[in-house]
Amino acid sequence: MTDLPIREELRGKSPYGAPQLDVPVQLNTNENPYPLPEPLVERIAERVREAARGLNRYPDRDAIELRTELAAYLTRTAGHPVALANVWAANGSNEVIQQLLQTFGGPGRTAIGFEPSYSMHALISRGTGTGWISGPRNEDFTIDVAAAERAIAENRPDVVFITSPNNPTGTAVDAETVVALYEAAQAARPSLVVVDEAYVEFSHRPSLLPLIEGRPHMVISRTMSKAFGAAGLRLGYLAASPAVVDAVQLVRLPYHLSAVTQATALAALEHTDTLLGYVEQLKTERDRLVTELRAIGYEVTESDANFVQFGRFPDAHDAWRKILDRGVLVRDNGVPGWLRVTAGTAAENDAFLDAVRELKKESA
Amino acid sequence: MTDLPIREELRGKSPYGAPQLDVPVQLNTNENPYPLPEPLVERIAERVREAARGLNRYPDRDAIELRTELAAYLTRTAGHPVALANVWAANGSNEVIQQLLQTFGGPGRTAIGFEPSYSMHALISRGTGTGWISGPRNEDFTIDVAAAERAIAENRPDVVFITSPNNPTGTAVDAETVVALYEAAQAARPSLVVVDEAYVEFSHRPSLLPLIEGRPHMVISRTMSKAFGAAGLRLGYLAASPAVVDAVQLVRLPYHLSAVTQATALAALEHTDTLLGYVEQLKTERDRLVTELRAIGYEVTESDANFVQFGRFPDAHDAWRKILDRGVLVRDNGVPGWLRVTAGTAAENDAFLDAVRELKKESA
Repeated sequence: MTDLPIREELRGKSPYGAPQLDVPVQLNTNENPYPLPEPLVERIAERVREAARGLNRYPDRDAIELRTELAAYLTRTAGHPVALANVWAANGSNEVIQQLLQTFGGPGRTAIGFEPSYSMHALISRGTGTGWISGPRNEDFTIDVAAAERAIAENRPDVVFITSPNNPTGTAVDAETVVALYEAAQAARPSLVVVDEAYVEFSHRPSLLPLIEGRPHMVISRTMSKAFGAAGLRLGYLAASPAVVDAVQLVRLPYHLSAVTQATALAALEHTDTLLGYVEQLKTERDRLVTELRAIGYEVTESDANFVQFGRFPDAHDAWRKILDRGVLVRDNGVPGWLRVTAGTAAENDAFLDAVRELKKESA
Repeated sequence: MTDLPIREELRGKSPYGAPQLDVPVQLNTNENPYPLPEPLVERIAERVREAARGLNRYPDRDAIELRTELAAYLTRTAGHPVALANVWAANGSNEVIQQLLQTFGGPGRTAIGFEPSYSMHALISRGTGTGWISGPRNEDFTIDVAAAERAIAENRPDVVFITSPNNPTGTAVDAETVVALYEAAQAARPSLVVVDEAYVEFSHRPSLLPLIEGRPHMVISRTMSKAFGAAGLRLGYLAASPAVVDAVQLVRLPYHLSAVTQATALAALEHTDTLLGYVEQLKTERDRLVTELRAIGYEVTESDANFVQFGRFPDAHDAWRKILDRGVLVRDNGVPGWLRVTAGTAAENDAFLDAVRELKKESA
C-alpha cells in the first residue's frame, strides 16, 4: 500500500474498528445482547421477501415510508412531534454524520467534539477533509460548560458534536449545557450542532430532541443499532429542521438506502414495544454492573448508556488483556486508566463480574 | 435551506436523481425489467431470516464470504483469476467510487472523465472535494485516444475514470485504449485509473478485468444493480490489486455493509446462471431496439449496454416530453440532440417503439 498514490494524511493509518476476537463473552462493541424475537425475525423475512420481488427496481430514493415511521417513533417516545420532513435516514449513524460533515464541514472547515468521546466523529471529519478540534472535558467526564464555550468562541468551528449519553464514558449531557453550547456556536459562526443520541433510549434522562424547536442549526442523531438490537442492520437517522434534511440530500448518494434495509427497519419498527422492553432489562443490568463494580472496589463513571466505564487501572491495556485471558472481551478505548464494558445478558455480566473480581484480588 | 451554513459550492444545487414519475412504461434508469425469479426470492427470505437471528450483532466488517463469492463470479466470467484480497464491496458502485475518491482524490486533487459519461463520477468528485476535469470524446462518442492522452498529460489528474460500456451513450472502450490511457496516467502522476464496468455483462466484448494484472493502479468497478437485476440491493464492488483494497479500508465507514445486504447479495450470487440468462434475453432486446430505431429513421449510437442512445432531435427535452405523453418514460441525460432508452421487456420495448414511431411521423 505504501507505493500507492493515496492521500498523504492516510499514510501509516490503520482501518478503524474494535478487534474482532473469538471469545465466549463479547462485551466490547455495545451491542444489544438480545437476539431479535422470533416473530420479528419472521416479519423481517416476510417484508424482505416482498421487497425482493421488486429488487430489480431502484429503492425509494427518499425512503418515505421508513422516515414516516421513524418520525412516528420519535414523536411517541421523545416528547416532541416530528414529521417526515424532519427526519433523514442512512446506512448507520456514521453515514448520517458523514453526510452532515460533507454538507456543513469539509475542506477549509472545522468540527469540534469534547473528548474522550465517540472516536468516529474525529475519524469521519478526517475522511471528509474537515479539520478536527479536540475540546475539553472535566476530570469526571462531564462537559465543562465555560471551557467548552471558550473553545467554541476561540475556534469558531463549523460543526459542534455533543454526544449524550457520551461514548465511551456513559455520561449524559443536560439540556442547559446543550442550549448554552448551541448559543455559543451561533454567536461564533453560526455552526451546526449535532447531538449524537445513539444511546439515549438507555438514559435516565429524556431525549434532547425537543431542543430542535426554534433551533434551525440543531440536529439530533440516532441509530437502530442499540435500542432496537439491530447493529447488523446499519440504520441511522436524524431529526432536525426540514431545511437540514433538504441540505443533506445534496450530498447523499442517490438510492443510498437499499430496499432490504428499508424493509428490515420497517419490520423492526413494528416491534418497537417488545424491543423497548429489552432496553428496560438492559438498564437494570447496567445499574447492577455499576453497583457491583463499586462494591468490588472499582471507580465507575455515572452511566446513562448500555455500557459502563470503570477503572482506574495503572495500565488499562494490561487490565484489558487480563480480563480477556478470563474469556471476557471488554473495550480499551484509549482513555488512560479506564476500560468500558457493555451491559450484556445477566449471565454475561456475571462472567464479567467474576473476571474483574479475580483481577481485583490479584492486584490487591 | 438558503439560511443554513452549508458549503458554498452546494448553494443553489439540486439533489441528483432521475424524475420518479408514475408512468406505465419506465425505461429511464437502466433497471433490469425482469423481477428476480421466485426461487431466488425465497432464498433471499431464507438467508435474511438467518441473518436477522444475529442482527443484534455488527455485521462481518470485512464481508469475507461475500467478497469470496464475488471473486469466484469474476474469476468464472471475466477471464482472469481474482481472489478475496482483490475484491472490495460497498453500498452500490457509487459508494465504491466515493471510497476511491476519498482515498486517492479529495481536496487539492483532481479527477478526469471523458464526457458525456456517468454523471455521478463528477458529482461524487464534488462531494469529496475532488476537482473535476471534463475530458473530451469524439463526435461518435468513442474516446479520442490522442486527445485523452493530451488531457491527462496537461492536467495530471489523480484519478482517471473510463466507463465501459459508457453511460449514457452505450459505447464500449477497447483494451488498447484503456492501456494507452493507463500509461499516460502513470507517466503524468501516477494516478489511479478506474474502469467503470457497471454494464459490462451486456457487452459484445469481454471484461477489461484481466488488465489489472501487473497494473497496480488500475481498478475495475462493478455492480449487481444491472446484470443481477438487483438495483434495489445497492451492491457495488471492485477488483484491483490487494493494496488498493487495503487502502479503501482506511476511509470506509466501519460495518458499512449491513448483514441483510450481505445475505441478499449472497443469495443472488447462488442464482447467477439464471440471472445471466436474463442478460442474454436483454441483449437480444437491446439489439432489436437498435435495429428497429434505425429502421424508423433514428440515429443510434452503437450499444454494448442494456440501453440505447438515439436521436437526433432538434430539442431532445421536447422529444422526451412527447414520448412521456405517450406513457413511456425515457431519459434525457442532457446530451444535446440525444435521448436514452433502457432495454425493457419485449412488451415495454414495443410500447416504446410505437411511441417513437408516432413521434417520427408527427415530426416528418
